[in-house]
Amino acid sequence: MDYGRVFAGAIERLHEEGRYRVFIDILRNRGSYPNARCFAGHNGPKPITVWCSNDYLAMGQHPKVIAAMEEALHDVGAGSGGTRNIGGNTHYHIDLEHELADLHGKEAALLFTSGYVSNEATLSTLGKLLPGCVIFSDELNHASMIAGIRNAGCEKRVWRHNDLAHLEELLAAEDPAAPKLIAFESVYSMDGDIAPIAAICDLANRYHALTYLDEVHAVGMYGPRGGGISERDAVAGRVTIIEGTLGKAFGVMGGYIAADRAIVDCIRSYAPGFIFTTSLSPVLVAGVLASVRHLKASSEERDAQQAAAALLKTLMADAGLPVMASESHIVPLMVGCPMRAKRVSDILLAEYGVYVQPINYPTVPRGTERLRFTPGPAHDETMMRELVAALVEIWGRDELRAAA
Amino acid sequence: MDYGRVFAGAIERLHEEGRYRVFIDILRNRGSYPNARCFAGHNGPKPITVWCSNDYLAMGQHPKVIAAMEEALHDVGAGSGGTRNIGGNTHYHIDLEHELADLHGKEAALLFTSGYVSNEATLSTLGKLLPGCVIFSDELNHASMIAGIRNAGCEKRVWRHNDLAHLEELLAAEDPAAPKLIAFESVYSMDGDIAPIAAICDLANRYHALTYLDEVHAVGMYGPRGGGISERDAVAGRVTIIEGTLGKAFGVMGGYIAADRAIVDCIRSYAPGFIFTTSLSPVLVAGVLASVRHLKASSEERDAQQAAAALLKTLMADAGLPVMASESHIVPLMVGCPMRAKRVSDILLAEYGVYVQPINYPTVPRGTERLRFTPGPAHDETMMRELVAALVEIWGRDELRAAA
Ligand SMILES: Cc1ncc(COP(=O)(O)O)c(C=O)c1O
Ligand SMILES: Cc1ncc(COP(=O)(O)O)c(C=O)c1O
Repeated sequence: MDYGRVFAGAIERLHEEGRYRVFIDILRNRGSYPNARCFAGHNGPKPITVWCSNDYLAMGQHPKVIAAMEEALHDVGAGSGGTRNIGGNTHYHIDLEHELADLHGKEAALLFTSGYVSNEATLSTLGKLLPGCVIFSDELNHASMIAGIRNAGCEKRVWRHNDLAHLEELLAAEDPAAPKLIAFESVYSMDGDIAPIAAICDLANRYHALTYLDEVHAVGMYGPRGGGISERDAVAGRVTIIEGTLGKAFGVMGGYIAADRAIVDCIRSYAPGFIFTTSLSPVLVAGVLASVRHLKASSEERDAQQAAAALLKTLMADAGLPVMASESHIVPLMVGCPMRAKRVSDILLAEYGVYVQPINYPTVPRGTERLRFTPGPAHDETMMRELVAALVEIWGRDELRAAA
Repeated sequence: MDYGRVFAGAIERLHEEGRYRVFIDILRNRGSYPNARCFAGHNGPKPITVWCSNDYLAMGQHPKVIAAMEEALHDVGAGSGGTRNIGGNTHYHIDLEHELADLHGKEAALLFTSGYVSNEATLSTLGKLLPGCVIFSDELNHASMIAGIRNAGCEKRVWRHNDLAHLEELLAAEDPAAPKLIAFESVYSMDGDIAPIAAICDLANRYHALTYLDEVHAVGMYGPRGGGISERDAVAGRVTIIEGTLGKAFGVMGGYIAADRAIVDCIRSYAPGFIFTTSLSPVLVAGVLASVRHLKASSEERDAQQAAAALLKTLMADAGLPVMASESHIVPLMVGCPMRAKRVSDILLAEYGVYVQPINYPTVPRGTERLRFTPGPAHDETMMRELVAALVEIWGRDELRAAA
């Protein structure tokens, strides 16, 4: 067994397909986000504008969040020092779980170290707690849900993206007595479209299925208090389990689920991914508490972000750029080739100081490689017009037309 | 399908077995650790002494760590705002990966959101990159390694804990041409014993296997620079992949692997648990950088911690308490029954202000329930003598003798 050759070959394949990832080395400038500094390949840091952050509302820069984290740092120190069960359960964790349960109108909530872990741990454990369970998964579900469903070891049916007729067909084909779980997202973050939550809950009722909703790209962003699309559509009470992240609109890091007390208690008690790991640093938890509380009371950031996204979509469409239809705050621009997407991104960074990451397989299907813009409340119209002009210029270059 | 009954039944089983977990609600006092405040069931916070933290060296309270985190908080903000590939790669992450690679004398290192995720993501991905791979797993391996190995979907052989003859027997039984990986820990944290790393590497050479070593309870703690048992034993160069946490001796949160460049690049490029998740907050990374750098240069904390552990073991043994044989900094006290372990822990907290968590199944095998003490540099002799006196008093109580 030549291990070296296997590993080298695995990397070689990525280069051949043009999807070997080089991480760009940046530091954001607190207080003047979306401005940042880029390190790689330059003499000293170069100023750039970030257009692809998932800190959608710039809450990671909010003075209340920073102040809360600073206070916790000085009050209790850096890390929690243990798992939730063994020394790592702080008052902050308990407060935040109450705050998140309240955000979604659920009895209880449970924190995880990330949104990824919350999906993986919850779905894999649910599958084990419900013997014979069949999980119905939207075909565009996130990698973390796919991992959780696979690790659950139970039967899985994949339904065509947001296709209710197909979902019903699959539900109807199963034994009515078998436990069932429908897993889906609200905002699909690479396309920007939104699931018909109410209609999916109707099907769940009809076929007596549980529902699991990933609101990672919607919490903090939609609904009068930032409870997500399920709050906006007033259907949170019909969804069995709502899952979210603390690392995108809330601006910090971590993940959670909110549900009935019994379900949360089961996951808390049985999920290895929850039990056997150091709990979130209290510093992070304190920051999230401030962020969630602020966004429950303030819609200013949400409104400004929606306005920015709408304006950018209009400007791109008016300029004839291939902006994809998106019902949400996400602005994807189709390229359709990994090499070309990378080339556009490289030119933007090198010549225009604009940072937007190309999105490749496996994050999106092959042949649908794209640039994904996430304008925030602090991206103003001037920045947008400059960005669109740059894109138009690059789109017109011979090398890119030739590659198309 | 009565979902409610299934969930209620799962919880009921835990109550019946006496292993339903109630998290104690605490806040540590920065600057005066191991002192802390306990909230649950009292009128206002009650002062306690923490005896079960995995912040072994109190680095989570170290002024350099706190200062570095505060600086990062003010320089760049709360969260990273993205995955490592999409906007979440900061200069801090890159610096820390270099620092960790250097700590273990490896070409490269890779950060994860936790030690749990580093084990799960790396092992499951290695298994997929090496078709036909057989993984040899020590029977006491941590839940995160077990999850990674299971999710790898490849063949697994479990060898008796630290039993070289059994490991060799299993290695010899496989096809010599099949890829092989031996996965084990250095310090086993619930018993405190240590793996014979050099002898395991000898077997790996003989049978042409890769080695994967979890040093979660040893990094920062052993070796002249805190490189773990593999540094202490001067065998790091022989281990293929070393894995560690940033949440125990380093005092913050996060996990990592260190290995050859090609292997790290493969995990970076193929592991969903690495790719599809918001990267560690730069605030945490900055804190870890300070912690790792400090512990590379200073052995003071390690020496004080080892002295404290040795003293506590002696005091317990002299008092006739059932302290378990431990070659490391961990001081486990055998109880052997979940109800009794919980009762001792409850009395310690309520009557003595001592917090030590009972350790139950599935963290340890049934019938070996225990209390696990982790004295640190700041637990002094007076505290230890008080603790031992309390334990002797409780051990002598009728209710506990009767239950034995
Ligand atoms: C739909 C979806 N779910 C879950 C996650 C994981 O969340 P986190 O970044 O907190 O791990 C992501 C992105 O990272 C996501 O896009
Ligand atoms: C042996 C071992 N490996 C891995 C982990 C997971 O590390 P982390 O707490 O950083 O997730 C732990 C404990 O939590 C552990 O004891």
